[in-house]
Formats: sequence, C-alpha cells, structure tokens
Amino acid sequence: MSYQRVKGTQDFYNDSILKLRYVEKLTLEIAKNYGFKEIKTPIFENTEVFTRLGDESDVVKKEMYTFMDKGNRSITLRPEGTAGVVRSFIENKLYANNLPLNKLCYFGPMFRYERPQAGRFREFNQFGVEVFGAGTPLLDADVIISAYNIFKSLGIENIKLKINSIGDFESRQNYSKALEKYFASNIENMCSDCNRRLVTNPMRILDCKVDKNNPILLNAPNINEYLNQDSIKYFNEVLSVLDAFNINYDVDYNLVRGLDYYTDTVFEYVIESDDELNSLAICAGGKYSSLVKEMSNQDIPGIGYAFGVERIIAIMEKQNKFKDIEYTTDVQIISLDEISKLYSLKLANELRLSGYVAEIDYTNITMKHQFKLADKINPKFIIIVGEDEIKNNKFTIKNSYNKEQVTINSQDLLTFLKENL
Amino acid sequence: MSYQRVKGTQDFYNDSILKLRYVEKLTLEIAKNYGFKEIKTPIFENTEVFTRLGDESDVVKKEMYTFMDKGNRSITLRPEGTAGVVRSFIENKLYANNLPLNKLCYFGPMFRYERPQAGRFREFNQFGVEVFGAGTPLLDADVIISAYNIFKSLGIENIKLKINSIGDFESRQNYSKALEKYFASNIENMCSDCNRRLVTNPMRILDCKVDKNNPILLNAPNINEYLNQDSIKYFNEVLSVLDAFNINYDVDYNLVRGLDYYTDTVFEYVIESDDELNSLAICAGGKYSSLVKEMSNQDIPGIGYAFGVERIIAIMEKQNKFKDIEYTTDVQIISLDEISKLYSLKLANELRLSGYVAEIDYTNITMKHQFKLADKINPKFIIIVGEDEIKNNKFTIKNSYNKEQVTINSQDLLTFLKENL
Repeated sequence: MSYQRVKGTQDFYNDSILKLRYVEKLTLEIAKNYGFKEIKTPIFENTEVFTRLGDESDVVKKEMYTFMDKGNRSITLRPEGTAGVVRSFIENKLYANNLPLNKLCYFGPMFRYERPQAGRFREFNQFGVEVFGAGTPLLDADVIISAYNIFKSLGIENIKLKINSIGDFESRQNYSKALEKYFASNIENMCSDCNRRLVTNPMRILDCKVDKNNPILLNAPNINEYLNQDSIKYFNEVLSVLDAFNINYDVDYNLVRGLDYYTDTVFEYVIESDDELNSLAICAGGKYSSLVKEMSNQDIPGIGYAFGVERIIAIMEKQNKFKDIEYTTDVQIISLDEISKLYSLKLANELRLSGYVAEIDYTNITMKHQFKLADKINPKFIIIVGEDEIKNNKFTIKNSYNKEQVTINSQDLLTFLKENL
Repeated sequence: MSYQRVKGTQDFYNDSILKLRYVEKLTLEIAKNYGFKEIKTPIFENTEVFTRLGDESDVVKKEMYTFMDKGNRSITLRPEGTAGVVRSFIENKLYANNLPLNKLCYFGPMFRYERPQAGRFREFNQFGVEVFGAGTPLLDADVIISAYNIFKSLGIENIKLKINSIGDFESRQNYSKALEKYFASNIENMCSDCNRRLVTNPMRILDCKVDKNNPILLNAPNINEYLNQDSIKYFNEVLSVLDAFNINYDVDYNLVRGLDYYTDTVFEYVIESDDELNSLAICAGGKYSSLVKEMSNQDIPGIGYAFGVERIIAIMEKQNKFKDIEYTTDVQIISLDEISKLYSLKLANELRLSGYVAEIDYTNITMKHQFKLADKINPKFIIIVGEDEIKNNKFTIKNSYNKEQVTINSQDLLTFLKENL
C-alpha cells in the first residue's frame, strides 16, 4: 500500500517551505511595524463561531470541514481567520487593555472543501489583519496602505487598489430599499438564494455567485447614488489620504459587501498587467461597524483584510521575486582519520552554535567518500582536519567557489568565516 | 449568546504569542545550523497514515480526531508529527535527491482528544526532527546533541539525558522471547491489552500505561542482558561521543520502545532539579531501522525526536527565561494640527518601512488626547510635528525614558533612531 496526502493538501519542503517562511517573515515584520500584534487562534472552533456571521447560503459555509468530536460537540476547521479572531477578542476581553485601538494580525492555515483546481487548496494559508476600536478615514487609509506596503516589500509588481464605499447604515438602508424595488420585478429569473435574499437582505444578491453574470444583476443600481453626505465626506477623506500616498486606485462602484456588518470602505487589491496575472484579486478587505456587535454586546467598530498566501507565492514566482531562496551549507568538515572524526563533529557543533550551517560525513572515513558528499551538498567552505591539524591548532580551509585555500589558526576561524561568508 | 474557544484549545496573543514565536525561531535556527530542513505537512492526513504505525491499542489512537470529509474519506487531524513526515518523505521521494542523509524538522500544531488537565492541550505544538538515510553511532549522538543544544540555547537549566539501547533486531528478538517466557506465568494479572501483546509483541507490554506500576512489569528482565556484541559496541560508541561532548546522561535500562521499528538508541530528556519540575520529561526520541519500511518498500533507517512546545514554554517561564519579551512601540508621532496629521502618517510609514514600530493617534487632534495615548502605548520616542516643523524640516524628538529632547533635521531621523534604539 502506498500512502498519499489528502487531495487538496500540500507538503511544504525544500524551496516551497523557504518561500512560505519568507513571505510569513516579511509580512509579519511589516505588520509589526504598523503596530499589528499577532494572534494565533485554534485550528478549530465551535461551529457556531463560523455560522453566526453571514447567511447560511454563504459559499464558505457549504465548504466547511464540520464534524462531531468525541465529546459530541460540533466543531469546524476554520474556513477563514476573522471569526476566530473576533471570538478571541471578545472572549479574552482584549478591548479591556484600555487602548483606543487593538490592531491584530494572523498568519496560518485555513480549510475549505473546495472543488480542486489549479492554485486552489483545501488547506491553504491566509494572512489577515483586524483593527478594533475606531473608525476614521485616516485609519481606513492606513490599513489599506499597510497591505500595499506588505505587497511592495514582497516585491510584487503591478498592484492596483479597487475601492468603494457602501456608506453608513442610513445609506445602506436607502440603497437596500432601492435594490428591493429594482429586483422585485425580475427576481423570478434569479436563483433561489437570491429570491430568499430579496426579503432578508437585498444587498446580498449582489454577492451572488450563481447570478454574477446575469444582466439583471449587472444592471442593478449602484451604491454611489445612495450615499448620504456623511458617507460621501468619509469616503472622500479616505481617498484624499490615498492620494497623498500616491496609491494607484480605481473607485469601483460594483465592489460591495452584502453582509450586514459592513459599512463605508470596502477594497480589494488586484494585479493589473498585460500577462495572465491580469485582474487576479490578491486581497480583500473592508470596514465593519458591527462585526463585534454581531457576536457580543460590545459595540466596537473594526476594519480588516485578508490575503491568500499561496496566491501571493504564485505571483512572486511568476514575477521572479524569490532570489537566493535555498538551503545552503556554510562549512563541511572533512576528517583524515577516525580520531579526527570526533574532533570534526565538535568543530561542527561550535560552528552551528555560532550561527553557521556545518556538516560532516557521519558514515565514511575515506577522503574519496567525504569529497563525494561535498560534491552533493556543495558547502561554501571545506575544512580538512587530521592529527597534525589538531596538534598544531591550524586548519586548511578551502573556498569551494574560487578554490582558494588558506591555513588559519583555529581561534581565527570564526573571524575568517564572518569576513568571508 | 457568548462564544468560547473549544475546551482544550488556546489563543496565543500578547506575551503568549511572542513566547511561542521566540521558541519557534530559536529552535528552527539551531536546527537549520544542524542541517535540518523544515517540512510542513498538512494538518490532516488519511487516517491510515496514523493507524498503520504502532498497534491499535496505542493511547494516541484512542485520542485521535477522526472524521469523514464531504468526499466520504476518513481523515484525521495529526496526533503527532512523525507519520506525516514519513508519508511525505516517501510520497515526494525525498530520498531521491541522492544525499546520503535527509535531515528534516517540523514545528506546528498536533491534536489529541485528551482528558483536560493543567498544561495539557487538545491542540498543542510540537517540534521534532527526523533523519533518514543512515544509522551510525556518530549520527545518533549528534542528533541527541542537537536537542541538547536547542534546550541550552533556549536557556533551559538542569536538563538530564536518559538513554538506553534496545539493540538490533537479533537482540530485540532474544529479549522478546525472554519477556514472553517471563510474562507467560503472570499475564492473568495484567490488562487485556497486555494479554494480547504477549502473543503479538511482548515488548509492547513494557509500554503499558495501565500496568505501568504493576510489580510484574517492574520486575521484568532488562534489555541490557540480551544485547548482542554488535549492539553493545554500537551503544558504547554512542556513549563515548556523548562523553566527549560532556553531555550529562544516565543509562536507564527501563527506557524501551516496544514498537517493532525501533532499534538501538532510545532516549529522553528530563528536568533534574529540586523543585516541582524534577523528573519532568521534555523530549523523547529513538532510532528506527524500519519505520520507513513499514510504510513503503524503501529500507531506509532513521532517527528522530520530538518535544512539546507548551511544556518547554512552561519550563522557561518557571526558570524565568523570557526576558524583554513584549510588544513595544519605537516612535509615536504627535501632530499639532489637522494638516500635520497627514504628514505624521507619512512619517510613520517611512519609519515602519525602515524597520521601526511607529504609531499615531488616528482619532484625536488635541495634544492632551495624543499624550494620553502615549501614556498607554509607552513609545520609546515621541516626535512632535506641526506647521513650523514641516516647513523647517526639523522635529523635536523626545526620549520617553530619560525625558531628554533634541531637535533634529528630518533627514537625520533614521540615523538618530539607529544610534538611540
């Protein structure tokens, strides 16, 4: 019998783990400088944590890994990051730290039972931020800029921001009524979920995946005609900050979020290029005035975004942004006899604890075999150690690339490596 | 309704995420220097991957999170790291890279439905290494030393190695026969699993959790009396390398691994101190000649170990090894008016992209409120920006700790921070 990973899951090793770790490190570093503190919530939650938000026809909910644990609780592998972070924010009373703002970020695996397709995984990684505690145009813009600067730091080219406002609750309500009126006469030509939404929340019709190319939906009125003065002012202030930062954006009136807790600013980043990456969405976010309230009695506004790490890695690969991403060996120590083998291991350990990747051949004692290993692992330097070298405290160290070799005192080794690596 | 995390799971945030990340970073860094390449396997595997190894009475198997996915496959959240790594090693033919050794390591969450108790979690983190491709005393010792040096680097004190040999297959077979004979006359006083094991694999009786304090088990013959000459020689060579490295160890004849694929070296690290940490096991490992063979037709020897990260963190906390582990803000920029607010955000962004944690008050424009934020986030430096400052390209920067303040040109800011942070 042969064993295989579960369909839609991946193994990260060699280059792929280095790429994942590179993106993780850089992303979390930039996020930290923006004041985002990392939070790591469990891989699974009580199912209600995910079903509470949104409506039951959400694609995500149809794709959840939900099961009963041995204690007969319904638990679900997290399909996205926000719900768990909100649950944790409330349960751990993170708002009680007396700060005006709680800026949080997360990085880790999410799970959706999606139809397998190129670049889509059932276990995939997501980075996201959530800010709780204030809602100002300056904050919205800064959160949007933080994503922009993460992408820039990763070297991603041709990114374009798409942004829109869905207004405050009053504006949303006006728009909702207009949509209800508009769709009422056409709803028999739309899907059953849309028919239900016409009653519960007409704005959700705009998110419909089934009817997304239906002309009825495409010709629906736009939110921008229904924004009140406050909402317009708010949105213009967000845009003016983005202008000051020279962020390349398009206002896209078709960008909406139908869920009740969203207000004002919604945005996405896409790739805009003349190759196959064109129009690829890489990040989605928005402001939510009542997300926290949906799950608690705390009325705390928020804003957040998330991006899929595998897609970012795929774009960076296509744009050739992973340079010098490989495992390397700094030093291999070759021993001339059985006794110096132990000495070699000690030397290797000293180097390892001083920050260098050091290797020996654990099996072979002949020069031929040890050099064969060197051919395979391609160390930057080779040190040769024998009885004389140990006695005199001097080694020969050879640069594998330019083939130069020098003899140095053992106490000068770390200095030599520091200067030459 | 209030939402809670699932019993036995944890949220990592503030100090706890910093501690987790600190242990992860240092552990992976030392491992890398030892030549271990990281591998990240999926959170879940086909259930057979975990049931194939060991026997069905294993505690771990009774505690697995196993469920059917929407495609009616039985999948299991990984209860430990080795099985997935072996599956990946075989499926991805990592042995085909032509290296004599594949040194792998992993760090991530594992899942066991255990009885909740202090310090035990149903989702917990594990670090482990697996080396495939050779079995030599020098390699065994080096792997054992790598764990030692990880613990040392983390600052953990009073660690003691417990080590034993369970010999090669011949030695194991001799021992197994002796155990069969010994237990045969007493087996009616032992648990049902032990009764079954007497037939299938008598050495597994020694791992019994039910009968672990049963005098019949405690008085069983020791493996050391049954080692053949090759096994004794191999073990002595391992010990002599450890001696050369001044590793503090006890040979413990009671340390065995009953599973068929283990051979020769088995080991554990424990804490040896005069406080409540005494005897706490922090790491377990061993050599396996036929683990890979159990899951494939590849006859590749291996050695590995694993440790639980939460326990390591708990010990480091008790031994006071987390110093300066906290989120800090390097600079807060305070603006004197509405116009300089935008300038402040620009300055903050420049600092963030230069590696500093920089913050502004997104909501307030009054000095009083902005200084109130400073009281809360306690930035190392405060910069005050107004119309004059922007015009003259000069800021006042104040050190929050010693209250000193200086006026510097904006272009000297990064140099100033580099020298003073």
